[in-house]
Amino acid sequence: MAVRNAFYAQSGGVTAVINASACGLLQTARQHRAKIGKVYAGRNGIIGALTEDLIDTSVESEASIAALTHTPGAAFGSCRYKLGSIHEHRAQYERLIEVFDAHDIGFFFYNGGGDSQDTAYKVSQMGAGLGYPIVCVGVPKTVDNDLPITDCSPGFGSLAKYIATSLREAAFDLAAMSRTSTQVFVLEVMGRHAGWATAASGLAAEHEGDAPHILLLPEVVFNEARFLAKVKEALERYGQCVIAVSEGVKGPDGEFLSASASKDAFGHAQLGGVAPVITNLISAKLGCRCHWAVPDYLQRSARHIASETDLQQAYAVGRAAVEFAVAGKSAVMPAIRRLSDAPYRWDIIAAPLSEVANQEKPLPPDFISADGFGITATARRYLAPLIVGEAYPPFKNGLPDYEKLQNVAVPKKLKTEFAV
Amino acid sequence: MAVRNAFYAQSGGVTAVINASACGLLQTARQHRAKIGKVYAGRNGIIGALTEDLIDTSVESEASIAALTHTPGAAFGSCRYKLGSIHEHRAQYERLIEVFDAHDIGFFFYNGGGDSQDTAYKVSQMGAGLGYPIVCVGVPKTVDNDLPITDCSPGFGSLAKYIATSLREAAFDLAAMSRTSTQVFVLEVMGRHAGWATAASGLAAEHEGDAPHILLLPEVVFNEARFLAKVKEALERYGQCVIAVSEGVKGPDGEFLSASASKDAFGHAQLGGVAPVITNLISAKLGCRCHWAVPDYLQRSARHIASETDLQQAYAVGRAAVEFAVAGKSAVMPAIRRLSDAPYRWDIIAAPLSEVANQEKPLPPDFISADGFGITATARRYLAPLIVGEAYPPFKNGLPDYEKLQNVAVPKKLKTEFAV
Repeated sequence: MAVRNAFYAQSGGVTAVINASACGLLQTARQHRAKIGKVYAGRNGIIGALTEDLIDTSVESEASIAALTHTPGAAFGSCRYKLGSIHEHRAQYERLIEVFDAHDIGFFFYNGGGDSQDTAYKVSQMGAGLGYPIVCVGVPKTVDNDLPITDCSPGFGSLAKYIATSLREAAFDLAAMSRTSTQVFVLEVMGRHAGWATAASGLAAEHEGDAPHILLLPEVVFNEARFLAKVKEALERYGQCVIAVSEGVKGPDGEFLSASASKDAFGHAQLGGVAPVITNLISAKLGCRCHWAVPDYLQRSARHIASETDLQQAYAVGRAAVEFAVAGKSAVMPAIRRLSDAPYRWDIIAAPLSEVANQEKPLPPDFISADGFGITATARRYLAPLIVGEAYPPFKNGLPDYEKLQNVAVPKKLKTEFAV
Repeated sequence: MAVRNAFYAQSGGVTAVINASACGLLQTARQHRAKIGKVYAGRNGIIGALTEDLIDTSVESEASIAALTHTPGAAFGSCRYKLGSIHEHRAQYERLIEVFDAHDIGFFFYNGGGDSQDTAYKVSQMGAGLGYPIVCVGVPKTVDNDLPITDCSPGFGSLAKYIATSLREAAFDLAAMSRTSTQVFVLEVMGRHAGWATAASGLAAEHEGDAPHILLLPEVVFNEARFLAKVKEALERYGQCVIAVSEGVKGPDGEFLSASASKDAFGHAQLGGVAPVITNLISAKLGCRCHWAVPDYLQRSARHIASETDLQQAYAVGRAAVEFAVAGKSAVMPAIRRLSDAPYRWDIIAAPLSEVANQEKPLPPDFISADGFGITATARRYLAPLIVGEAYPPFKNGLPDYEKLQNVAVPKKLKTEFAV
């Protein structure tokens, strides 16, 4: 088998640990020089491939590559860009083949969530469809934790740890203020269609009465009367009420509660702003003082409070992707398989991309409490190990010392442009 | 000098380290048993004194008291409640004397910001005015950093570290997404009238082009045209724009830009929500995609990312308050005096409460860059040491292990009630 180069790219919303997957992949690729030549990173995901905008990762030092494990964001840039179907957008695939062929790329690694695994799956089909065989491995990543087959998605554990930590801290604040000031605190949590992250905020509560007192999950249709009754009950019982609300909560009409829904490039509604909506409702109907927070990007990039478990898994899927590829496995994605809850043990298996692409895994019904406003013991058993362990980045002058790679462009070989 | 009991209470918005001041005060008081008997904490600040709702701190173990150094919120509850003037609200002071006399309280410690130091100052005047001599020491605390005389206010350094860290992390996120998705990120920062915290976000930038690209400070009147031109310039130059906006930014009409201004118990406008206003403006006028975050309580309770420097200062002012009191100093507040910037050295001096109460310290003009959208080297020199050092709390099961005191009530001795 001749030495071929590899293409690696990051796609979709970033996480605190996607660069740890990059690190695992790049370090492992460097151990397989008999099969993998250079790893070219796509600048801004698949767009880098389409526009022949490739980054030569081989010029980065071992230290810089290692520093990716403690750096949030996406070191090579990400994108929200979905390939069309091979039948209807053949030009995209012909362009990919043109670029890959020009740079002798025989391995394709694509690091992202459901939409990105769809891209990876389509590229894996190019082999048969267009006569350009390429070993294609998806690398899982999403704070939404909604990828199928894998027990959890790298990036989620760190977001969960951030959310549960932040909610606990804000609850200490509220408890101190509730006598004369704020009685309700509403925290808006990411999660477009699946309530995993909002569910994880429930880990902040250890004892009866601990915050959060109410979760609003996208899996449960919002019922204003029942919700307000629940808030009132918490206020009467505890003198305060802490609420975690998923950005994707919908009303009985099926519409997002969030005021400002616009669409992203994948055609998904871009959310944000349901916390003020909920707050205004409580304030108007119950007359109590409320505060709300929308951490937005802060939650998915909070490398300073990343989960060590999540970090290890992110690294492991990057490493496994290369190991699968050099073993000739294609059209697969390394998936995390849970072996036991306590002690928490896991390993990596190969999931077929055909079964991963475009699937969303909602919270299982038995994770949601009977009244719809909390999580069950089953959910806690699942979620608890994912946030365990601290993995602080190095600090310099009081701030996290994150890595910025050189991102040196690979000289273009093609004379043609491609508009994306 | 007979042994007298002490009253200690926490007031105003909480911080990540106000309990470290409580710890410094309680531990030091326990070392002065020849002068200070028990320390009774007011449940919810001065309200605890007025309602004779006192907490016996002597029943708390040494370990629990020590754990306050890593616990956010206010361990004894806080309040937003301001005493009236002695002339017009004499009943409040007579009630305080009644309660203090019943519990043999000879020392009064009040831990808070400008409004709370006003309370401390008024109580210190009771001695002469109403014939109840009491040693009265204020303990500084405010994330707003707007107390006069003291070089900085405990609580601010940790908020500053949280904001600068979070902004840097979000900027890594934005940089990864800006090619195909979000180009502008707006972070809303606390600070009612003074832009200290927003200024501190500027520490996240180390090199030309680093985020934040624009600061909106309350000291600078918001000018829409100049602001939009600045955003456009950043977008053209860097392909992205990160903005930190103070909740207290006002337009040319003197009104807060924030949409939902209601008032708190001190009569101050309760702010929050200027980030979506700014975002909508940019989106409408420049047509680019924006994200915004409002961390609200998260920023002032983020003990997990507290500044070690801030923590040490918070402890030191609590300790110094007792040392001042047992030395007979009254109507003072321990203030931090900066001895040098680099290496950063500081000590504690006594500031007269009469000069502290009800004063607000805005950002000095020479801290603000010529165009009004950034900070100067002078500001960086001042701010930089305040965020240095990490002081992580202990973690259990992946979450910070914060202390909840027993807060055992002191049996009431009075038969009378007092409505607050």
